[in-house]
Amino acid sequence: MSNKGNLFVISGPSGAGKGTVVKEILKRDEKVMLSVSATTRSPREGEVDGREYYFISKEKFEDLIKSNGLLEYAGYCDNFYGTPKQAVEDNLEKGIDVILEIDIQGGESIRKVAPHAVSIFIAPPSMEELRKRLVSRGTEAENVIEKRLKKAELEMQESSKYDYLVVNNNVEQCAENVLCIIKSERFRVNK
Amino acid sequence: MSNKGNLFVISGPSGAGKGTVVKEILKRDEKVMLSVSATTRSPREGEVDGREYYFISKEKFEDLIKSNGLLEYAGYCDNFYGTPKQAVEDNLEKGIDVILEIDIQGGESIRKVAPHAVSIFIAPPSMEELRKRLVSRGTEAENVIEKRLKKAELEMQESSKYDYLVVNNNVEQCAENVLCIIKSERFRVNK
Repeated sequence: MSNKGNLFVISGPSGAGKGTVVKEILKRDEKVMLSVSATTRSPREGEVDGREYYFISKEKFEDLIKSNGLLEYAGYCDNFYGTPKQAVEDNLEKGIDVILEIDIQGGESIRKVAPHAVSIFIAPPSMEELRKRLVSRGTEAENVIEKRLKKAELEMQESSKYDYLVVNNNVEQCAENVLCIIKSERFRVNK
Repeated sequence: MSNKGNLFVISGPSGAGKGTVVKEILKRDEKVMLSVSATTRSPREGEVDGREYYFISKEKFEDLIKSNGLLEYAGYCDNFYGTPKQAVEDNLEKGIDVILEIDIQGGESIRKVAPHAVSIFIAPPSMEELRKRLVSRGTEAENVIEKRLKKAELEMQESSKYDYLVVNNNVEQCAENVLCIIKSERFRVNK
């Protein structure tokens, strides 16, 4: 056992509710923090630098890539998104557990560069329930929902590559279960 | 993930309080049971067959050894003590988690024959505290206490071979931590 923190990758299909579960975990345990990603996109209204994202320039992002300063990164719609390595390592060194909440693709990258990370897959109770959740948001057209459901079905197959799978039937219960996994790691010998 | 239960080996030096911790765990979670050992010694007053031990004859014990019906066994003072395999497997099959609460020597045997078992080492807060606990019992002479402390010190070195180490500062807290480890295993992928 060391007094360093542990690194957790929390991933799952979009709509599984991983964001809400992570928020609930952060409320319950002070020794856990969420890694803040860096992005080159502009802040939206209400977003605070260092809270939602580190908002940085394209040049600075490219410098981070070159200096191997990112655990993983990806581009969407002309913008880059990535996980700054230094902040993660500083927190682990201080004994704080760090969560990377990340999509399936990002999760795969992280598991490669940080195989010691404990990976947790958050799954929706069923495809039926996932459909209900997406429909009830009322923000997306039928064909977009169908597309997202197909993607989720494919992403579910990735769960077998994770260390743990927790079904999100209920946010509080799911957060408690994930927190149990996080706490257990603190007692692991020879980690 | 399967719906089978998981096997846990809970061990630690005598005086670490593993028995009290296990009792507390059983009170808190219905899906966990303690494996009952078989012994050839006679029941003491108040002991119930199938609760403290399965009290069986030397012949029946030898039959169990021959038929490979014990996970581990050892002899003390002309009597045999062992862990019957069938009861453990029946419970695991039913989805019940099974705890083997066992001394360091037995723990080592189990880890060899059941490498999939999750092993948890319960440690006293310190040698100083262990001495206090042994002295406060008031049942043993000074030289016996010294002998037990030396043994405990040697046994502490075995902790590095366990999956988890939980310090027993406080029975309730220790039980909660061990229960977290037990619950986490229920979410493990590809176990």
